[in-house]
Order: sequence, then C-alpha cells, then structure tokens
Amino acid sequence: MSHTTAAFSVRLVVRLHHLPGTLGRFATAVGELGGNITKLSGFEVGGDSITREIVVDAESEDHANAIVLGLSDMEGVEILESDDIVFHLHRGGKLDVVPRFPLRDRDDLSVAYTPGVARVCLAIAADESLAWKYTGRATTVAVVSDGTAVLGLGDIGPLASLPVMEGKAMLFKEFGDVDAFPVVLSTTDPDEIIETVTRLAPSFGGVNLEDIAAPACFVVEEALREALDIPVFHDDQHGTAIVVLAALDNACRLTERRMRHLRVVIAGAGAAGVAIAKILTNAGVPDIVVTDSKGAVYEGREEFSHGKAWLAEHTNPRGITGGLEEAMVGADCFIGVSRPNIVTRAEVESMAAQPLVFALSNPDPEIVPEEIGDIAGVIATGRSDYPNQINNVLAFPGIFRGALDAGATAITESMKLAAADAIAATVRDDLRVDRIVPEAMDRSVAPAVAEAVIRAAVRAGVCR
Amino acid sequence: MSHTTAAFSVRLVVRLHHLPGTLGRFATAVGELGGNITKLSGFEVGGDSITREIVVDAESEDHANAIVLGLSDMEGVEILESDDIVFHLHRGGKLDVVPRFPLRDRDDLSVAYTPGVARVCLAIAADESLAWKYTGRATTVAVVSDGTAVLGLGDIGPLASLPVMEGKAMLFKEFGDVDAFPVVLSTTDPDEIIETVTRLAPSFGGVNLEDIAAPACFVVEEALREALDIPVFHDDQHGTAIVVLAALDNACRLTERRMRHLRVVIAGAGAAGVAIAKILTNAGVPDIVVTDSKGAVYEGREEFSHGKAWLAEHTNPRGITGGLEEAMVGADCFIGVSRPNIVTRAEVESMAAQPLVFALSNPDPEIVPEEIGDIAGVIATGRSDYPNQINNVLAFPGIFRGALDAGATAITESMKLAAADAIAATVRDDLRVDRIVPEAMDRSVAPAVAEAVIRAAVRAGVCR
Repeated sequence: MSHTTAAFSVRLVVRLHHLPGTLGRFATAVGELGGNITKLSGFEVGGDSITREIVVDAESEDHANAIVLGLSDMEGVEILESDDIVFHLHRGGKLDVVPRFPLRDRDDLSVAYTPGVARVCLAIAADESLAWKYTGRATTVAVVSDGTAVLGLGDIGPLASLPVMEGKAMLFKEFGDVDAFPVVLSTTDPDEIIETVTRLAPSFGGVNLEDIAAPACFVVEEALREALDIPVFHDDQHGTAIVVLAALDNACRLTERRMRHLRVVIAGAGAAGVAIAKILTNAGVPDIVVTDSKGAVYEGREEFSHGKAWLAEHTNPRGITGGLEEAMVGADCFIGVSRPNIVTRAEVESMAAQPLVFALSNPDPEIVPEEIGDIAGVIATGRSDYPNQINNVLAFPGIFRGALDAGATAITESMKLAAADAIAATVRDDLRVDRIVPEAMDRSVAPAVAEAVIRAAVRAGVCR
Repeated sequence: MSHTTAAFSVRLVVRLHHLPGTLGRFATAVGELGGNITKLSGFEVGGDSITREIVVDAESEDHANAIVLGLSDMEGVEILESDDIVFHLHRGGKLDVVPRFPLRDRDDLSVAYTPGVARVCLAIAADESLAWKYTGRATTVAVVSDGTAVLGLGDIGPLASLPVMEGKAMLFKEFGDVDAFPVVLSTTDPDEIIETVTRLAPSFGGVNLEDIAAPACFVVEEALREALDIPVFHDDQHGTAIVVLAALDNACRLTERRMRHLRVVIAGAGAAGVAIAKILTNAGVPDIVVTDSKGAVYEGREEFSHGKAWLAEHTNPRGITGGLEEAMVGADCFIGVSRPNIVTRAEVESMAAQPLVFALSNPDPEIVPEEIGDIAGVIATGRSDYPNQINNVLAFPGIFRGALDAGATAITESMKLAAADAIAATVRDDLRVDRIVPEAMDRSVAPAVAEAVIRAAVRAGVCR
C-alpha cells in the first residue's frame, strides 16, 4: 500500500525534450522514485520541447525533495518550477472576507454605508432582535482557539494554530454555508478566554471552540454556555462524540447489538473521551469504562480534574480499577482517543465476539486495522485512507447551520443526539462493515443534519 | 434641488396594462409624487400586461411609502412587490467569509486541513514570523467598535453599530483588497476594550478602531498602539484628519495660501477635532483654535479630558477665550466637525478674504453651502450631493493596504502625512474649487495612497 498523499505533494513545471518516449521515461522515473502523479497537463509545445505542469504526491517532505532531486538529474528533463503545494496554497491565508453585493457607484455606497445604513442601525437600536435579520450575525460563527491542543501537535500557540482555524472556517462555509471566522487568542487562562469571548459575542451567532486543552476546555465551554444566549460548542468534545455515536449506532445494527446492553471501553479521558462517555450515557449505554495513563477512572481514585470527576461518578459501574488490558475483557466496543499503538491483538481477542474497534488516534491509530482485520466485527479510524473515517466534518457544519436557522440559543443534548441519528441515517440503506458512516466529502450529510437539528431545537424549546 | 436618495429607495415589481401610454402615465405619476426613477427593466410580457422592475428614489421613508400608496391607486397598474432597498440588501448581513480555493475532493481537504495543514502549523510554531506568510493575518484587519459614537447617531450599542462595521469592511475590500472583519464589543470600558483587542490580536494584521466615543477613543488607541506590534488606527480621528489635510492642501494652492501662515478654526473637540488639530500642527499650521460647547479651548481652562489637554497645550497661540464667533474673525479656514447650523453667514464674512469653509457635520453641515456660495473661496462638506466630499474612504483602505504590504508595525505620523499628500496629488492636475479632493468612488486613490504609505513606512523604519 502506497502512503503517498496530497499533504506532501509537489507541483512541478518541467520542460521535456519533445522526443518519443521522454514522457514515458519521465513518468516511469517518478514511479521508481516512489512518487504518484495525480495531475498532468501539457500546456505548451515550443520548438523541440514541451512544457508540462505535473503534480506528484509523496510520502514525506524528504521524499518529495528526493523526487525533485532525482528528476532534475534526468536527461532531456528540465525542472523550471517546483512548489510544495501545501505551502503554496497557504500563502496569504485561506479565507477572503467579501461583500455580498457589489459597490459599483455612489448609490450602492449610500445603501451599504452612509446615509442608508443609519436607517438599519436605528431599526436595530429600537429592536435589538432585528440584528438577527439585518446583520451577518445570523450566519456567522467564531472559531475560537488558544492553540493549546492543536490537532495531534499539542500546545503550539495561537499563531501556529491559525491555519487549522482557517481550514475549519473553510469547511464551515463549504459544507454548511456558515460564515466562520478564526479568533485565536493570546491567552490560555480560562477566565480570560471566557471574558474575551463574552465581550465579542455581539459579532457572532455562535461560538465553535476548537483545540483548547482539557481541563480548561470544560470550564470555558460551561461558563460560555451559561453566559451567552447563542450556541456554544466545543467541537473536539461534541463533534467527535456525535460522529462516534452515529458510527456506533450503525455498527450495532450490523452486529445485532443494542445500545442498552453494550459494554464500551474508552481509552483517553481528554476532551473527546469525556464527551463520548457523556453522549453514550445519554444514548443509553449502561457500561462504560474510561481509561487514562493511570488506568481505569473509578469512583474513589484520587486527584481528579473537572471532566474526570464526572466520569468517576457516572461510568465504570463494575468498579474496574486496573488498566486497559483488564477493561477490554469482554467489552463489545473499544473507542480509542488517546495514543498510537497502545492496544494489542491479544486485548482485542479478549473482547466479546465480533468486537467493534474504533481506533481514532490520528494519524497513527491505537492499533492498525491490518492487525485485527480477521477478528474485528467493525473497524473505524480517524484516517481517510481506511474505511469508516470518524471525521467531525460530518457533524459541525450541519449542527451550526441547523442551530442558526432555528434561532437556537443553545445546542442541547437532544440536538446532538438528533445530529448523530441523522448522520447514521444517511448510510442506513446501504450499511456495510466498511461503510458505517458517510464519506467526509458527502455533501448530503450537512443538510440532513441541519434539518434534524432544527426539529430537535424546536422540540427542545430553545428557539428565539 | 431634489433630495431623493438611494438611501430611501424602493424596488417595485409592477404589472402594467399593455396599452399605449401606460408606462408614460406611470412614469409621470412617479414624478408627480416626487419620486425619482433610477432603474427600470421590463422583464416579461404576458398577454395584455407587462411586468417591470422599477427602482424609485425618495426623500424619506414616509415619502417612499406615499409614493407606493399613490401608485397603487393608478388604473392599469398593479404593484406585485415592493421592497425597501436598504433593508432588502441588509438581509443576512453584508459580508461573506469564503474559501480562497475550493474543496472539491479528499486531496483538497488533506491540503487545506488535516493532515497537510499540520505542516504549516509546525513551520509557524518553529518560526512565528511565518504566520505573516502562510495565514490570512497579513491581509486581515479588525474593525472594532463599542457602538458608543456611531455615525451621527450616538451611543446606540454594539448590535446596532454592526451594519456600519460591515459596511466599513465592504469598503476595505472593495477599495483596498483588505479582508476586514467587524468586531463589536459588549463593553464600553476602555480598559476592557484594550484587554480584549490585545487578546484577539494574533488573528489580525491590523486594528481599525471605529465609532468609539471621545475621550475613551484616545485612551484605547494610545494603549493599543503601545501594546501591539501591528498597526492601530482610529479612523474617526485619523481618517478624517488625513482627508481634511489633503483638502486643505489643495484649497491653499487654489487660494494661494501657505500652510505655515494659516489661521484655522476647528469647531468640535471630539475625536475628529483633536486629530485634525494634531495633523495640521504636524503639517506646519501655526495658528489653530479649537472650540467646543464652552467656547475656545485655551491653556488654563478647567476640567479637561485627555484630548483637550493636548489642545490646550499645543493650540490657540493667541490665547482666545471667547466663543466660535470671536475665533472666526480673520481666520483663513473653518473646519466644522460638530453640529448642524452653528455657523452664521456673518461669521464667515468676518473671516479672511476667500475663506475656506469645511462644514463636515453630517448629514446637516454647520452652515449650508447655498448660504455662503458667493463669499467663500472653497467649500467642502461631508455629503456626496455637494462638491468636495470629505470622505474617509479616500484614506483608510489605502493606508491599511500600504501598512500591511509594508509589514509595518505601526502607522506613524509620517505615513499619515504621506497618505494626505497622495490623496491631494490625485487631483492636483485638475484642481478646481469644486474638486479639491477626488470622488469617494475613485478607485485610483487607494493604490496611490498605499504606495505612498509603503515608502513612508520604509523611511520611518517601522517595517518588520
């Protein structure tokens, strides 16, 4: 299996001698160097040469450099340009803030700005609820981070987290038509984050918290939900939890299990682990054991943070006090949101028959699918190159689109459950062990989620 | 002179009987009702009628309603739809946040988001200056307001100020290709504003303060300029001051005056008044008197706020202690940034020959041009329906474009003077008493300003 990826791709502009076989030799050379040609366009024949633009996926930065170096040695081949595509496309950022109608003349100016705009201002001053109608607030979400828990990279700070927040905002627009704007903060103090976001809130219709480390994320989310009358959602917690629940629902159908009889082990007691335990509890799973680096979380264990105190009180009904190995015995489902390679084949063998293994550590899972393909009932990962990718993008665009359209003042537990059900339903007609959730790029998911979230918001009575 | 304006325009969809003369009767009726047809398109002939879309400018909301009512009574005319264009175009806000490249497939996703984005994050974590290259920070400006001094409307709060900030962001993009985002705050406490903007700064390459009341605006701007290493600019102060200086420069040329011999009276000691006094002082004007509701500001007058203390120390060399009437005697130039109708024709008569009158109170000037057309040398206002509109849009888009392109850490006094000179220069070849500044919609201005600002930033040594 090749591990070349678009994440390490190079765009080359090459001049090839216009002789029979040059392109063939060139393409063969790329293959021999381990590169994967994903795009090729000939754009100019000039005299005895042809200039082509070629995109080659590689396995790593070093590999990409080696390919370029290797090709530059070829006879009859001249490399005119070479760009690292990821950095090339990040130049100047990934977002534009653009007018929704053009300013062509003085009339347009007097409608969009003074004096016309004053009429809209006065209308809102007289009735603040009109801001939902006549400003972008109704469709704008802040993507807020302090940069303390960015992807798998850890505490890299606000500036280094900005590309992730911009990417998130792109996904919000592409899948949910939500105008999202990155707000990265130069503070990691929970009280200061709460204070800052509260003061910003008039600009936004919702707040998506992102990549804030546990346990601060719990404190921040809880306080902001309390302080604000707009939806506040920590995606690393709830986005992940919702997609996991959708996947688990469908995996149960495939293996003829019931949520209410399920035994689940969750490795990882961070933001995602706690949120998954909560949503599974709400979905009726009776036996959840969460483990962290010290083993199972149980009532009576010492030095608990915010999230773990909840786990101790509400999970681990059999009072398991050992490590992951002990917790896995007889479990129906393993959900990993922790570290690479912490699960052994023997542990999976100790689970119930047809075990469900969701190894979501990214990019390297808790156990690689190849190791347990023959014994697992269903396998999911966080990666796009295996089946069943648990990707938050299935949840957050539709959830915010629905919450904004409903005029919801909060995202309730029932809205989260409805979102999970809607995601699961999109593949229910064609359920397979390699298709328990839809593809990340499936554009039918967000509208279905939005619709379910709107109905749930109305039922919950949280609409403005 | 008709005072119909696009700010009070109505979009009508009307069905007209398809008989000779109906359109003529209809258009005549609009005119008789005082409306001004600015757009007309026939889009469908169906049987014995034709459906047309018509835009009619009116003088006020009541006038617009009266026009619609009057037309609905006409024989052979049926009004199918009628929309207030200002509110119609404000629906859902005026800005979109959009991806700069499309997410078509999984490859695009792995470049813009995980796993590709992690490479950009790590590069920035290793060298934070790369955020200027690989994020939107390099081209993104926060338009920050607390809603305390919005247009001429006063303290209407953050939500009601949002349409103005969105309009400002549109202007930033249209004229300067700057991605501006409205940040309206639910606090009016200067310390809290300073704190909040400081914490947000990593998301932005510059801060445009807007419609924050004096004296808080002085404190906030000064503290933020101190705290941040990105340009901070209070547009109500400096934008206005820069365009006034440009206009004054050209008015002096027309009337053969020298800045260094000028006597200037400024009515209004708010944000704009103080900033104008400062920039004129820097430009070499030796005799400036600023008046507020208590008369001239002079050294020794009591209970001074931040801005006025500066004025007392640096202006009013002749120690005038009376009111506006006294200050005007013999002055070369009057600059009003205060309230409607506070200046009399007699006061203008008391000024030097060929007086320069900049009556910038908006929408109603300190004295209407019609009253002094025969005695003034040059007249300017803040309105688009008189010649010589002093409009900040001539300054801020080019200033930020230039500051961002230069990698400037601040906007220095020399950069402001350079901007004013660049604005003045755009009309210098065709200087007329009714053309001392370019049109607000003149798209050649911002690039010229940006270029001048870049050169000044380099000379000032404030580039990163």
